[in-house]
Amino acid sequence: MKKVDHIGIAVQSITESLPFYTGMLALTFIKEEIIANQGVKVAFIDAGNIKLELLEPLTAESPVAKFLTKKGEGIHHIAFQVEGIEQRIEELNEKGLIFISDKPKKGAGGADVAFLHPKQAHGVLFELCEHTGEKGESNHE
Amino acid sequence: MKKVDHIGIAVQSITESLPFYTGMLALTFIKEEIIANQGVKVAFIDAGNIKLELLEPLTAESPVAKFLTKKGEGIHHIAFQVEGIEQRIEELNEKGLIFISDKPKKGAGGADVAFLHPKQAHGVLFELCEHTGEKGESNHE
Repeated sequence: MKKVDHIGIAVQSITESLPFYTGMLALTFIKEEIIANQGVKVAFIDAGNIKLELLEPLTAESPVAKFLTKKGEGIHHIAFQVEGIEQRIEELNEKGLIFISDKPKKGAGGADVAFLHPKQAHGVLFELCEHTGEKGESNHE
Repeated sequence: MKKVDHIGIAVQSITESLPFYTGMLALTFIKEEIIANQGVKVAFIDAGNIKLELLEPLTAESPVAKFLTKKGEGIHHIAFQVEGIEQRIEELNEKGLIFISDKPKKGAGGADVAFLHPKQAHGVLFELCEHTGEKGESNHE
């Protein structure tokens, strides 16, 4: 775990919630992106040393849609930036930790991402993410 | 908003949840502290560029105890580091934002802290915190 990359926040609508961050908190919007394999639209916001990632579900089957139904809008996950994600998954597996999927999936900006099962983390959903291509992402401070 | 200072995580027991962070995730425990005016014991963990703050309620009336009853263990709040917290509260008040208490309270490490009402933030509890004394805290990266 090098450092925290971003905090994911589940919202019903990016259009409705983004003005709170850019207007009220005066933070800077970075970019919006659709991540089809997770059924979400995401919006990244620059929070200085990390990013905030607003997550809006695009389908009822999206894990974010299920989160919203169960818990309502709010903080969804914490993402750690890692190097060598497949090896990190193996190491954590060896320690007894279970991932929702052991094979990394493609996340925002082409990053490789994997989610730890929240039960072992006392209710917190942790993501590992490795920025493989976009320099702007991996060097973000 | 300079940057994110820490992420607060509500837990039933620091003793039971801390080993996940220090053992499984191999993060470093910083310190433990009782914050009597919020009815919590907190444990800070170094997550590289920010801190994680485990929050264990000490009384049934603690806001964290109520959070646990309603939502269960999980991510509780995001804290922004600010300078001049009283002025920042005034500015956000002028923009129409409501704080749970308009007067900052003493938080961990003697920091001045104030919480925004989560309703306006689409379910996210945001804290403003200003480290006033402890150098080790204010310079933490």
